[in-house]
Amino acid sequence: MIPFDTPPEDKSELDEAKVFTPRFDEHGLVTAVVTDIRDGAVLMLAHMNAEALSLTLETGIAHYYSRSRAKIWKKGETSGNLQHVEAILADCDQDAVLLKVRVAGHDAACHTGRRSCFYRAVSLVDGKAALTSIDDRRAFDPAEVYGHKH
Amino acid sequence: MIPFDTPPEDKSELDEAKVFTPRFDEHGLVTAVVTDIRDGAVLMLAHMNAEALSLTLETGIAHYYSRSRAKIWKKGETSGNLQHVEAILADCDQDAVLLKVRVAGHDAACHTGRRSCFYRAVSLVDGKAALTSIDDRRAFDPAEVYGHKH
Repeated sequence: MIPFDTPPEDKSELDEAKVFTPRFDEHGLVTAVVTDIRDGAVLMLAHMNAEALSLTLETGIAHYYSRSRAKIWKKGETSGNLQHVEAILADCDQDAVLLKVRVAGHDAACHTGRRSCFYRAVSLVDGKAALTSIDDRRAFDPAEVYGHKH
Repeated sequence: MIPFDTPPEDKSELDEAKVFTPRFDEHGLVTAVVTDIRDGAVLMLAHMNAEALSLTLETGIAHYYSRSRAKIWKKGETSGNLQHVEAILADCDQDAVLLKVRVAGHDAACHTGRRSCFYRAVSLVDGKAALTSIDDRRAFDPAEVYGHKH
């Protein structure tokens, strides 16, 4: 596993640092934003612990940490929709990363079969927050791909 | 403030829901990914509590919750780089939102003066995670804009 150094005590040193010292939260996680390298579309948001970051950097295939299953999650292992990581960027205070990926398989990142997890717009309707779908195209049938697991 | 309903107990109901029931974490926050509506570039990542979500939906100007300052953060209030929100999308399990914004002022989202907070690439160098800058253009001088606050 890649040894990540401890972040500096002075947060202002993180901005121009040349060494990646991820600032893991109290659960040992950083946030990962995942975009499609072809057009920059935001596909999903996930979390990574040190092991997931290591595996991703070492293999070039996106690995996350599943909070619900409490284990390493090699994205696409079941669906075939592996994410080939073309670039990883760190943000200024090093508690988030941006992954630019090329999606294999069905070219979809969402467990609902859609390309992106962000497929509904939020708007105010009669003072309440409503959701309206902006993408109902399914690249795969979740029931077929995941069986009874979802 | 907008009344947000409590999320359903069965998480699978979140996928196709027509009502936005944000799944706030134990700190009362959801994650917000912020992109530029012009070209989709990921500008920053932040957090929103119910009040920040409400203010954003009601005013059309991005409000976040600053974890370090423990208060509502009207982004750009000091720098002038307000974010006009053109669209808000929710993700499948409703614990994250994607804001598509038009940035006012210096057209920059990062406190370092850069357009995006994601300005460094992570790569493996001699088995360690190194950072390489991919954007050193500053749209503003942080010392001048923030004075001694940063």
